[in-house]
Amino acid sequence: MMSKNLDFQFAAGRCGLKKTKKPDLAVIYSSLPCTYAGVFTTNQVHAACVDENKTLLKRRKKIRAIIINSGNANACTGKKGIQAVKKTQQIAAKLLKIKPHEVLIASTGVIGIYLDMEKMKNGLENSILKLSSKNLKSAARAILTTDRFEKIAVKKTKDFKLTGFTKGAGMIHPGMATMLCFLMTDLKIPQSLLQAALRSAVNDTFNTISVDADMSTNDMVILLSNNRSKKEITNSKDPLYSYFQSALREVCCRLAKEIVIDGEGAKKLINVQVSGAKTSEDAKEIARSIASSNLFKCAVFGGDPNWGRAAARIGCTGVKVDQSKLDIYLNNTKVFSDGNPAVFSKAKLNKQIKKSKEVKVIVNLKLGKKSGTAFGCDLSYEYVKFNSAYFT
Amino acid sequence: MMSKNLDFQFAAGRCGLKKTKKPDLAVIYSSLPCTYAGVFTTNQVHAACVDENKTLLKRRKKIRAIIINSGNANACTGKKGIQAVKKTQQIAAKLLKIKPHEVLIASTGVIGIYLDMEKMKNGLENSILKLSSKNLKSAARAILTTDRFEKIAVKKTKDFKLTGFTKGAGMIHPGMATMLCFLMTDLKIPQSLLQAALRSAVNDTFNTISVDADMSTNDMVILLSNNRSKKEITNSKDPLYSYFQSALREVCCRLAKEIVIDGEGAKKLINVQVSGAKTSEDAKEIARSIASSNLFKCAVFGGDPNWGRAAARIGCTGVKVDQSKLDIYLNNTKVFSDGNPAVFSKAKLNKQIKKSKEVKVIVNLKLGKKSGTAFGCDLSYEYVKFNSAYFT
Repeated sequence: MMSKNLDFQFAAGRCGLKKTKKPDLAVIYSSLPCTYAGVFTTNQVHAACVDENKTLLKRRKKIRAIIINSGNANACTGKKGIQAVKKTQQIAAKLLKIKPHEVLIASTGVIGIYLDMEKMKNGLENSILKLSSKNLKSAARAILTTDRFEKIAVKKTKDFKLTGFTKGAGMIHPGMATMLCFLMTDLKIPQSLLQAALRSAVNDTFNTISVDADMSTNDMVILLSNNRSKKEITNSKDPLYSYFQSALREVCCRLAKEIVIDGEGAKKLINVQVSGAKTSEDAKEIARSIASSNLFKCAVFGGDPNWGRAAARIGCTGVKVDQSKLDIYLNNTKVFSDGNPAVFSKAKLNKQIKKSKEVKVIVNLKLGKKSGTAFGCDLSYEYVKFNSAYFT
Repeated sequence: MMSKNLDFQFAAGRCGLKKTKKPDLAVIYSSLPCTYAGVFTTNQVHAACVDENKTLLKRRKKIRAIIINSGNANACTGKKGIQAVKKTQQIAAKLLKIKPHEVLIASTGVIGIYLDMEKMKNGLENSILKLSSKNLKSAARAILTTDRFEKIAVKKTKDFKLTGFTKGAGMIHPGMATMLCFLMTDLKIPQSLLQAALRSAVNDTFNTISVDADMSTNDMVILLSNNRSKKEITNSKDPLYSYFQSALREVCCRLAKEIVIDGEGAKKLINVQVSGAKTSEDAKEIARSIASSNLFKCAVFGGDPNWGRAAARIGCTGVKVDQSKLDIYLNNTKVFSDGNPAVFSKAKLNKQIKKSKEVKVIVNLKLGKKSGTAFGCDLSYEYVKFNSAYFT
């Protein structure tokens, strides 16, 4: 079906897995078999769909569809959870006239509740009828849970096109992967290069964000290529490969930032830039330590220029630092200078932070030449409210 | 002065370091030189007093006084911070007619503000006049910051007496040490055994608690012995040493639990017990991962039996687990059984958790015979409120 359209096609629908009347099912379909790259949660407690998608990746399977449901993570559901994934692949494959091993599955929502397969089946039957290249936005909307807005990024170049959408909001502290993100390109590229580009982009983007320091059971970033582009990348030395890598990083970065901006209850983005590190891993680790501090996040929520809480987080990672060398800036005001408090107007900075949508923390370790960035969001009453009654 | 009284003596006073009229200075004094053991924060960004106390410990100095101020952490204050510690030792030594190297210093409060030495001096002069064996409670009160109540534990045996007091509330996620805690005993014991007993007790108690996963710059646990007991411990094989160790663990455990109960904005204690681990370190690490999850803490605050959030935290530490073997109980109700959701009444458990002052999480990994415990507290609106305006 839909075989005349060679572009990626999308559909959204409703299974009734959510208590609200919002859509909870998205379908991505390609009539062309796609090269597939993926990065997954490192959480050992994870959903069955994570295992299934990893197996298909290992076997270098070509992919033609992704089925994504929200409202139920199908995690911690034992053997029944595994069966639900297989069954979903079978239903989708039959409806799309493809093979079950050409179908990837992703889920997000509450943990520990069995997936209602009757609902899934009805939802799939209705959704697949709506497949169209124009439905990107409604698919992006159907995968949301507590998110306030859909998150889409598109980049078109003369040689290829790259499209991505993602969801986030809570349980966001990815370890080698992040919440659900789906990326599509037409670039003709070997699987190994596609996978390497994705791994690197994820490390520099999704793995630098944190909403609540909780790592999900269902995180995954999937990248499909239908290989339709005229130009082809055959090896990693090709300048087009570098260009594709930077485009991929750019698209992932835009989506990662949107996840943090849409963090549960978040009012402000926290942008931490650490320089003067010996390695960029060190810089990233310290940046992420600051961006995920509850105390600092509360201070940002209140507009409180309490930089000492950021300073404290610099010292408690595994990275060796020298506190007498540290410089810290908050929104371009120097607050800590060579390990000494700087002179500045607290009242003025307080006012300024209160007005800022993005609070910038700049740290110089003065130990080397490498730098790194992390993104977080403030911790508000709404975060607590959201998360104090989700399951019941 | 006060030389006739051979017991530990205490005093409280006011320097004016806090904005409120509450006391902010405590003094512990012993006319007998004390054997001294200490465990300190592992945060590389830490207060000058931490370095000074560590130096005195390394030099095996006998101690006669501890000066503790609240309202100002004297951390991230550079060379001036170091001078403030030295100056405080000198002032106290002069007033107490002892040597500066017989004085330990501890501070808690806001980071990055210089200590007002004029205020410290006045406070010390007034406080030291009030030294008495009866002032334990007022000293325990003077070291509090956002704590709601003082935390004291005393244990008397026929052979020795052990007294301790502590403070906590926020920035509580100790790494090899915890917030300020002062322990006093009369047990005659070599320094090496005193230190070993303290290190072990801290690992099993203070290092298992978390309020907000933020590690302080000023954490320390100090144990002094004036060696007045008739019985003497000379080696680690002495049965009295085991008895002292268990008494010390008991006193530290009581104080650690009080810190969590008094966590900023906390309404409920979270008690996590992990069994079936290969090592007790593994068990403790997983217990602490659950006890410090923002998402799970919010669920407990709302009485939401959202056990999936606890399950997710089991998988994201460095400890290898098998999700298909996991059992989880919430307040004695089995919610996860051999990796499958258990059947239980959510409404009933929701009601029961709402009523509980202490929420118990029991996890069985079924991989070994070791177990471990961690304590945390729920995450409430009040935590956010407390911490959104502390500095300004």
